Amino acid sequence: MPSIFTKIIAGEIPCYKIAEDDNFFAFLDINPNAKGHTLCVPKKEVDKLLDLDEPTFMGLMAFSRKVGKAIEAAIPCDRVGLTVIGLEVPHVHVHLIPLKSMENATFQYKERMTPAMFEETAQKIRQKL
Amino acid sequence: MPSIFTKIIAGEIPCYKIAEDDNFFAFLDINPNAKGHTLCVPKKEVDKLLDLDEPTFMGLMAFSRKVGKAIEAAIPCDRVGLTVIGLEVPHVHVHLIPLKSMENATFQYKERMTPAMFEETAQKIRQKL
Repeated sequence: MPSIFTKIIAGEIPCYKIAEDDNFFAFLDINPNAKGHTLCVPKKEVDKLLDLDEPTFMGLMAFSRKVGKAIEAAIPCDRVGLTVIGLEVPHVHVHLIPLKSMENATFQYKERMTPAMFEETAQKIRQKL
Repeated sequence: MPSIFTKIIAGEIPCYKIAEDDNFFAFLDINPNAKGHTLCVPKKEVDKLLDLDEPTFMGLMAFSRKVGKAIEAAIPCDRVGLTVIGLEVPHVHVHLIPLKSMENATFQYKERMTPAMFEETAQKIRQKL
């Protein structure tokens, strides 16, 4: 069965899209640690980060760096953190999280956002790409 | 003033070393989220991940991938997570953390280890490099 991220990439599940190229796709995390929390995903469906072949791993990191710089330019924060965990959805995803304090990095605290806030946030980040 | 990581790289502060090349250095986190928790650091002292120039960023990720694979081979876990936060020490560091559950990823729970356990863990990881 395709992962939820594959369905998002295919447009079967809606998302607040940030960026896309031939191999990678970025969209806002719908349950964000902070405003601007974004996921970068390889289109190839692989469960574990370190099981990605080297070109895909490196491509994902280069893509995440570009998206992360746009987030850092668009969203007020101390810096953008980068995290790969992967215990919940078996499809590699890089979390890019605008950090103000450690609270934003622990995945315990969640930010409540309306659809309008998500749309505005996505637009601000896209403008910096 | 040099960062604590620069002092570790220079050998002025002891560490449980995992790997080193011309540009990067890896050693066990002394306050680990889980046994095998390792830090990968560029020798160049830069505060924020996204301020690294592209070759250093990409080099750090390639180095972390190699070390992460050794950790995954040496330490029983579901997978190795990769996290960059950086709110505490102003010198870029990639956390590589053997994950069994979300608890290992939140930086709230810490594993107690004796010097002998650290030494044995470092040796096991080095053997897989």
